[in-house]
Amino acid sequence: MDLNPILSRVDADLPAAMDRLLELLRIPSISTDPAFAEDCARAADWLVADLQSIGFAASARPTPGHPMVVAHYDGPPDNSGPHILFYGHYDVQPVDPLDLWDRAPFDPAVEETAKGPVIRGRGSADDKGQLMTFIEAFRAWKAEKGSLPFKITVFLEGEEESGSPSLIPFMRDNAAELRADLAMICDTGLFESKVPAIVTMLRGLLGEEITIHGPNKDLHSGMYGGAAINPIRVLNKVLASLHDETGRIAIPGFYDGVRELSDEMRSQWQSLAFDHAAFLGDVGLSVPAGEQDRTPLEMLWSRPTAEVNGIWGGYIGAGSKTVLPAEAHAKLTFRLVPGQDPLDLREKFRAHVRAQLPADVTVEFHAHGASPAGEMTVDHPAFQATRAALSEEWGRPAAFVGCGGSIPIAGYFKTELGMDALLTGFGHDDDQIHSPNEKYAVESFHKGIRSWVRVLARLAG
Amino acid sequence: MDLNPILSRVDADLPAAMDRLLELLRIPSISTDPAFAEDCARAADWLVADLQSIGFAASARPTPGHPMVVAHYDGPPDNSGPHILFYGHYDVQPVDPLDLWDRAPFDPAVEETAKGPVIRGRGSADDKGQLMTFIEAFRAWKAEKGSLPFKITVFLEGEEESGSPSLIPFMRDNAAELRADLAMICDTGLFESKVPAIVTMLRGLLGEEITIHGPNKDLHSGMYGGAAINPIRVLNKVLASLHDETGRIAIPGFYDGVRELSDEMRSQWQSLAFDHAAFLGDVGLSVPAGEQDRTPLEMLWSRPTAEVNGIWGGYIGAGSKTVLPAEAHAKLTFRLVPGQDPLDLREKFRAHVRAQLPADVTVEFHAHGASPAGEMTVDHPAFQATRAALSEEWGRPAAFVGCGGSIPIAGYFKTELGMDALLTGFGHDDDQIHSPNEKYAVESFHKGIRSWVRVLARLAG
Repeated sequence: MDLNPILSRVDADLPAAMDRLLELLRIPSISTDPAFAEDCARAADWLVADLQSIGFAASARPTPGHPMVVAHYDGPPDNSGPHILFYGHYDVQPVDPLDLWDRAPFDPAVEETAKGPVIRGRGSADDKGQLMTFIEAFRAWKAEKGSLPFKITVFLEGEEESGSPSLIPFMRDNAAELRADLAMICDTGLFESKVPAIVTMLRGLLGEEITIHGPNKDLHSGMYGGAAINPIRVLNKVLASLHDETGRIAIPGFYDGVRELSDEMRSQWQSLAFDHAAFLGDVGLSVPAGEQDRTPLEMLWSRPTAEVNGIWGGYIGAGSKTVLPAEAHAKLTFRLVPGQDPLDLREKFRAHVRAQLPADVTVEFHAHGASPAGEMTVDHPAFQATRAALSEEWGRPAAFVGCGGSIPIAGYFKTELGMDALLTGFGHDDDQIHSPNEKYAVESFHKGIRSWVRVLARLAG
Repeated sequence: MDLNPILSRVDADLPAAMDRLLELLRIPSISTDPAFAEDCARAADWLVADLQSIGFAASARPTPGHPMVVAHYDGPPDNSGPHILFYGHYDVQPVDPLDLWDRAPFDPAVEETAKGPVIRGRGSADDKGQLMTFIEAFRAWKAEKGSLPFKITVFLEGEEESGSPSLIPFMRDNAAELRADLAMICDTGLFESKVPAIVTMLRGLLGEEITIHGPNKDLHSGMYGGAAINPIRVLNKVLASLHDETGRIAIPGFYDGVRELSDEMRSQWQSLAFDHAAFLGDVGLSVPAGEQDRTPLEMLWSRPTAEVNGIWGGYIGAGSKTVLPAEAHAKLTFRLVPGQDPLDLREKFRAHVRAQLPADVTVEFHAHGASPAGEMTVDHPAFQATRAALSEEWGRPAAFVGCGGSIPIAGYFKTELGMDALLTGFGHDDDQIHSPNEKYAVESFHKGIRSWVRVLARLAG
């Protein structure tokens, strides 16, 4: 199929596409703040109308929280071709601290920068700008060809930035309607801001909070110091025991089930020539701090971690206070990789802590969230098709990459709907998502749209 | 000398002595709160007038803070006998939380309790009730004998509960006037609330605050976790390294100069039959947590400690946050014993921390206070005389004890005025000093006065 007419239309229509995106960005759809509930509904309605204008059967579907946008486009009468679901989210992060913004967050505009023009405004990269890349691709394709090449479902969430409380119930209640051959999730970025990337490994997450209890009240360190156990001291010992001297996690059984990287992935990642000096240098560091026998990308993508995210106990005000506190606390998260069972690891962590407690000390555990790691089946034909399409558009081979963080939606498509998911997107590392002055490169938007046109063509076969 | 007439007078005068104490307790001389400055001055004036009524040349001496009460009683014309200074403090702790008091803190009264009558009110035990024991002893002695047996100086401070900012300058400016053969400090308690005690060892104190710096900003643990160093992890390792598995402090050189207990002290302390099970049991503990080869009393009185009094870093709010913080903090204090130099130990601690820092991590130290341990020269004749007097009054041998905390005044008499100091007092462990419902046993007050009568007699020779 000759894609040039469609791609040319994308190029010609870019100014209008930008105007549409700016219109959507002007709606302050902050999902976590109830004061913006009407704006969230307005953003959903705007998307419904836009999708209807392209020929989708679209509606905003109520939930206990913000609405879901669901839109269907029927494929050819013979039902040939795949059925692909496209996911994005129309809600955005809060904007504080407002005084750090160089312009009003919901008064978006195109700005010239040293790296080229960008669309500045809350939600431009996360995720309105990204979800509009596939919608604009549908629009251009439809305008040029009269119809889309196969059956498409669009599923846009409005609670991604506020914990997605309605997502799983909605998926379950509408499973038959939502189920497709594959979910395309457009909420990630380019690798090192330049290489098109498909995320194939996502780390899981396990959260724990522990409280070490010692004496039954705060004690004076003069009167009791030396004879009374100090819970902070116990907490330090316990937490210091989580890693050995080589950076390896020392909880017995922690690595059970962890697999080595496949040769294909290892060679893929090596070819990325990851600049870890620049990556760490940006945040004032120089030496990778993980397991000494692993590469930096392994540390970030395919190896589990144990981190203390918060610690507190005793007197933390100004000056000095000679207190032996009754208790000490820490919040931890573990990043998990494929093969690790979060609930099993929770028990192993707790057993490891309990085994180290001296007399007179008790521990209290509080469970935070647990989600397993995700690993995509890259031999799915759509992965190779998408990879080829991205490589073509960006002029360099698209990479299969890992992601150190957790993107729960990918797992939910699998567990709730039995679908594989493919994560790709066009964000830059410096897009300031979740921060003031969020932006999205015009190039990301433009080439993102063109990328989806190519993906549609490849998937249509 | 037949002391019975004086002791009988003490007994007979007890109701009037209690009334005087209650009057003093009604003055809310909270030194730390400027709103009570006039009350502090009023308490000083009350004491001046009372001492004048016994024949002292007394005055309230202005300082940049609250006044000092200084009073002199000249000894016999032939200057025979010692010159003894008596120290106490007329200021009191704040009273909050007020709602935990069973009566208004400055509306004192005698209350019957299961353990006998007590004087309830702020300052009753710390230190107004105690300082009035020696003043009442002077009164009774003078009333019975016409004059006091030797030269006496009374020195009462009004800033003990607020860091004594004026104390050292005042001592220096008035050194010649204040210098005596010995200072009697009445601000301590009975051992285990029953054995009369003279404190002969006081631990010193060294305070340090450390901040571990890692990345130049807070990082997301998904994006950076595994490759970026976590300052909390470093802090845990450093703090966990302060003690070895036997409870011994592992800072190189930390025990340099620490002396073993003398045979006399060891046998003294053994004879006390310290009930450490009850001591620890009161606060929910059972096993002494210090060096495993030391007795509980050594842990508390004659061995140094290293304690983390406060620790904080990262996210400490509700729920979970996947942050790798830019820094982590801890406040520490070390209890020191004779032979240890605080400033030398500060450097040893800092070197120990620095030696453990991995790449990319820096540490910032902030010094809190440093004061050496104190050890009294118990072969001073006054110690034996006082001990004999106390043993006589209380019907059981008075003990030479240690004190795990720091009482800086004793050291100041030595360093500023070249005087030895003797610490004794009649408080109970459950007097609730610094807490709501402070009390002082009527027995402590009564037998305290009688004790001082006996001490005066012994010191007069």
